[in-house]
Amino acid sequence: MTQRATLGVAVVGAGRMGADHVRRIDRVISGARVAAVADVDAERAKAVADGVDGCAAYTDPAAAIASPDVDAVLVASPGPAHEAALAAAFRRGLPVLCEKPLTPDAASALRVLRAEERLGRRLVQVGFMRRYDAEYLRLKALLDDGGLGRPLMLHHRHRNASSPPWFTGEMLLGDSVVHEMDVTRWLLGQEITAVTVLRPRPSGNAPEGVDDPQFVVFETDGGALADVEVYVNCRFGYQVQAEAVCENGTARIGDVHGMLVNTAGRWGGVIAPGFVERFEEAYDRQVRAWVDAALSGEVTGPSCWDGYAAAAVCEAGLRARAEGRRVEVGLVERPALYR
Amino acid sequence: MTQRATLGVAVVGAGRMGADHVRRIDRVISGARVAAVADVDAERAKAVADGVDGCAAYTDPAAAIASPDVDAVLVASPGPAHEAALAAAFRRGLPVLCEKPLTPDAASALRVLRAEERLGRRLVQVGFMRRYDAEYLRLKALLDDGGLGRPLMLHHRHRNASSPPWFTGEMLLGDSVVHEMDVTRWLLGQEITAVTVLRPRPSGNAPEGVDDPQFVVFETDGGALADVEVYVNCRFGYQVQAEAVCENGTARIGDVHGMLVNTAGRWGGVIAPGFVERFEEAYDRQVRAWVDAALSGEVTGPSCWDGYAAAAVCEAGLRARAEGRRVEVGLVERPALYR
Amino acid sequence: MTQRATLGVAVVGAGRMGADHVRRIDRVISGARVAAVADVDAERAKAVADGVDGCAAYTDPAAAIASPDVDAVLVASPGPAHEAALAAAFRRGLPVLCEKPLTPDAASALRVLRAEERLGRRLVQVGFMRRYDAEYLRLKALLDDGGLGRPLMLHHRHRNASSPPWFTGEMLLGDSVVHEMDVTRWLLGQEITAVTVLRPRPSGNAPEGVDDPQFVVFETDGGALADVEVYVNCRFGYQVQAEAVCENGTARIGDVHGMLVNTAGRWGGVIAPGFVERFEEAYDRQVRAWVDAALSGEVTGPSCWDGYAAAAVCEAGLRARAEGRRVEVGLVERPALYR
Amino acid sequence: MTQRATLGVAVVGAGRMGADHVRRIDRVISGARVAAVADVDAERAKAVADGVDGCAAYTDPAAAIASPDVDAVLVASPGPAHEAALAAAFRRGLPVLCEKPLTPDAASALRVLRAEERLGRRLVQVGFMRRYDAEYLRLKALLDDGGLGRPLMLHHRHRNASSPPWFTGEMLLGDSVVHEMDVTRWLLGQEITAVTVLRPRPSGNAPEGVDDPQFVVFETDGGALADVEVYVNCRFGYQVQAEAVCENGTARIGDVHGMLVNTAGRWGGVIAPGFVERFEEAYDRQVRAWVDAALSGEVTGPSCWDGYAAAAVCEAGLRARAEGRRVEVGLVERPALYR
Repeated sequence: MTQRATLGVAVVGAGRMGADHVRRIDRVISGARVAAVADVDAERAKAVADGVDGCAAYTDPAAAIASPDVDAVLVASPGPAHEAALAAAFRRGLPVLCEKPLTPDAASALRVLRAEERLGRRLVQVGFMRRYDAEYLRLKALLDDGGLGRPLMLHHRHRNASSPPWFTGEMLLGDSVVHEMDVTRWLLGQEITAVTVLRPRPSGNAPEGVDDPQFVVFETDGGALADVEVYVNCRFGYQVQAEAVCENGTARIGDVHGMLVNTAGRWGGVIAPGFVERFEEAYDRQVRAWVDAALSGEVTGPSCWDGYAAAAVCEAGLRARAEGRRVEVGLVERPALYR
Repeated sequence: MTQRATLGVAVVGAGRMGADHVRRIDRVISGARVAAVADVDAERAKAVADGVDGCAAYTDPAAAIASPDVDAVLVASPGPAHEAALAAAFRRGLPVLCEKPLTPDAASALRVLRAEERLGRRLVQVGFMRRYDAEYLRLKALLDDGGLGRPLMLHHRHRNASSPPWFTGEMLLGDSVVHEMDVTRWLLGQEITAVTVLRPRPSGNAPEGVDDPQFVVFETDGGALADVEVYVNCRFGYQVQAEAVCENGTARIGDVHGMLVNTAGRWGGVIAPGFVERFEEAYDRQVRAWVDAALSGEVTGPSCWDGYAAAAVCEAGLRARAEGRRVEVGLVERPALYR
Repeated sequence: MTQRATLGVAVVGAGRMGADHVRRIDRVISGARVAAVADVDAERAKAVADGVDGCAAYTDPAAAIASPDVDAVLVASPGPAHEAALAAAFRRGLPVLCEKPLTPDAASALRVLRAEERLGRRLVQVGFMRRYDAEYLRLKALLDDGGLGRPLMLHHRHRNASSPPWFTGEMLLGDSVVHEMDVTRWLLGQEITAVTVLRPRPSGNAPEGVDDPQFVVFETDGGALADVEVYVNCRFGYQVQAEAVCENGTARIGDVHGMLVNTAGRWGGVIAPGFVERFEEAYDRQVRAWVDAALSGEVTGPSCWDGYAAAAVCEAGLRARAEGRRVEVGLVERPALYR
Repeated sequence: MTQRATLGVAVVGAGRMGADHVRRIDRVISGARVAAVADVDAERAKAVADGVDGCAAYTDPAAAIASPDVDAVLVASPGPAHEAALAAAFRRGLPVLCEKPLTPDAASALRVLRAEERLGRRLVQVGFMRRYDAEYLRLKALLDDGGLGRPLMLHHRHRNASSPPWFTGEMLLGDSVVHEMDVTRWLLGQEITAVTVLRPRPSGNAPEGVDDPQFVVFETDGGALADVEVYVNCRFGYQVQAEAVCENGTARIGDVHGMLVNTAGRWGGVIAPGFVERFEEAYDRQVRAWVDAALSGEVTGPSCWDGYAAAAVCEAGLRARAEGRRVEVGLVERPALYR
């Protein structure tokens, strides 16, 4: 074990996710400290910064990022603000953990990607934190090991107890299924080439006008199929499952649970109420990995390419849903930086 | 408990399934006896009949069915021979348990259906024996109970360790998925209105030219979706699963198993090697239900309509697969007899 | 398959278990028919016999057993009446399926055993039907296979939703744990040599004066330990589990279940309400095996020795419980007939 | 969120556990830093201290503890050295996280307890880290909630793949079952009043002279029973399970696992190879809780009383094992400090 320094982090965005990342860096993760917090709402920035020793509050993300005691940037502001924050970090050559989505659409994601490519080295890690979940990691290791043969299909389930009031049918794709877009690409090591969105008659639990559930099919350049059931008003809890069907076997994660209880004629257990409980440790592991990499001058984890590909698949999915047909995904050639 | 008579059964077809039904009626099921066995192969018919007290052997199904001590007919001959055997049973007004498929195509199935309709009463029970499986029955009861709300989607898995040498890509639909066609209709109480067949790059385990696995999507007249993963060379065993996604909950059958063993760093259990082990009791329950109904002058269970609908969906599926597109299913109006 | 005759059975005892066996032989099991029913209550005997074609009613078990169309005897009368019924069957040399207990105590069980020994051949199968349960059979096969090494310990759980009003603390041993006494001996192929009964503070669900639950420890002549948690007022359902701890692994039966449901924040399934639902197929399998054996002139399954050993262990258990100490089990030497 | 300082910790003992705690405080846990490391082996102390910024190495624990930048002490030296280290920490009034056992026997544990009692406030947290395991916490919460009624029995399983060469039959109690002694007391909120140790014929996997497995029974002052199967050469992996049997239901932890795989005729998953994998997060949670409490001037978690009670039960267990009889546990009256 060799000694290491402490990483000064600027957190951009002091909303729910931003404040939670501030807490995580300050209270949970060793090796890093929050040096600056930026939010367009000055009071919100100040309230969060006040809880942290030696932390300054800003309204301008660029000013926070320019602070001399900032070594790294965590972007947790709304999606449309990401591009500017990333540009500011790029100017100073700082590593960035950018919450998903990288940017709100494929065109802007591609601009970010080109900018990073011009820098000639990776600075961005996109916040696809499922890649840090213990169960997904186990599934990925199993597939990479190859003992079950080539993966033929993935079956995903993405269920939420209920959706917030502002949730739209488009957001089932852009906010929820975007995770499955990323883990499909990551688990298989393949790009998604076409998307189809099927819509059964909506659940009575779905708010007026929201087509919930949806059933999404991905085709990949490796000839695999992936399907996603997304149902965000299922009432019964939060449940994320993935099953890989390989040539010689299958593997499923996400449906076994800790404590089994017998009572009143029934056996079973509790379902997590939401993603915080289910993925809390994955968030920690994500930030820890990023801090560790940053302290040794590296950037690992999901890249701009992953953020761009997710944006492109997402756009195709929205078009497939709107037009009721299979839509192909067009990606630019993968730059050498991301190979 | 009131006294009851013994049912004399003619078994048409003395191949694998026919001989097994003879054994079941003679050795397992009370209340029935095998009075006649018919097979185009005279020696095969005789060999099977010789094992049963008071059982005559025939080469002509019609002659077997015409025998005066025959009260009921079990058709287990190849599909193309079903229509004639059913006609013979219809002439004598005898109840028939007809192995699936009712007939090999929708047109002939519709002719049988019209013939039964002209008789004005149901005589035919089609051998969709999954409807008698304890787990499917539990799932059906749960859906009918309504406590989970309206069913939105069904996810089916149909996996075989390996396919026989003569199996073709078409047979994945016509021989395997036909079961899911029936249970989808039965579980939901809805007709299938369109079929799409998706085909990932075939498994290395698939014989040359067989597109295994396939992924089939059904749409129903109730607005539900059902998907079927069929993979008949998965090596690892036989596995049939069904998951119903309802408005307020989900239910899954087919993936829990009897004995759990810890050894050598792993926990788990054994997977059934084939459908005989998995559905043995369903076959028994099916025949028992049929005998009981026959002895009280009734016909219950899957009807000609179910056999016809399966044939029609199957044809649509084969077309969807061949033409690489979504194909709608056209059904004649459901006759009053089958409502 | 060779032809076979039909077995004429006299059922002694027309109470709950007797009537159920009559139904099973008449309606479920092929190859046997109920020729006679005997019960001290003439009306009850007649009511049951009237439901079966060609079945005579008796009040005297010996008269029923003496009937010329009786080929075999099923004893389902209260325990104290067993010895006389067995003697009547022995006089005619008829095979007997005798519900557990063989007789109510070790001394009378030993008399029956000696009587059968004098006949020089086995006629009695004791109704320890767990030996016919699919899961127990799987566990037995695994232990016999030897792949997990020598069995070191067995952990049993025996839970009932509630006990009938007449149930006493002694009956937890004599009526409930007697099953674990038998399966311990059968699974291990060892005799029980000592019994200890531990009693925690009774559950609030236990009727006044009934020490429920109890925790029973068996030692065997092979150096193994077996423990039994028996709890007959657990409210939540009926649950029978067994876990074998072997040198290189463990195996558990009885805690996995058919259908898994997600709803209202919980996952799980239904627990069987009672032994009928849990062991229905084991009862069928038991009677079927007995009929098959009887038709070929054999007697298999649990023997008088098993019935006697259970009676002896039971007596030791009752003494251990009453005297609050470990009590050794004394068995006569095992006669050659039962080796 | 209010700002907080950083806790300076002296780690006493730089062996396997000590070095791991240094890593955890330096790399995993926020809010604390390792200020001093002490080990009788000067080189080992130096090697560990060199990896940490601002950390001094000592051979004398008392010197390390006396260092002015030390705010808290973590004792991970061998058991016989604990009493002196605790005394040094008591002199400075520093909070201590002391690895189990508190001290090697009940008499010395009682001396420590009296010393802390004289201080009039709790300084010691004993390292019973299972109390921080997510599954045990869930089980504890369920029992405390009371919804299942009063706990009647606990069934524990404690299985290791293999024991280290120096492991003796006594250590199955003192090193392994000591965890079940603590969780039994903690889960029930009751003291253990008697211990019985039963020993089946040892496994062929047990080293010569080691009586492995053992079966231990605890009686409590609340009238509950707890049994522990301990088997430390089971070959198949590491497995810790606990089942609570309450008046109206049961709950079991420790036998469900993350990823389920179907392959080659079997379903199942991987068993953790050892306690590090199984309880890694519990260790983190334990240290985090201790740091958080220390920073706010509190001591929570297992106390000296818990360490003393474990030592007393352990001694009774060793006597029960050696003398082949039930041995009662005598505890001094519980001091007010620990109520």
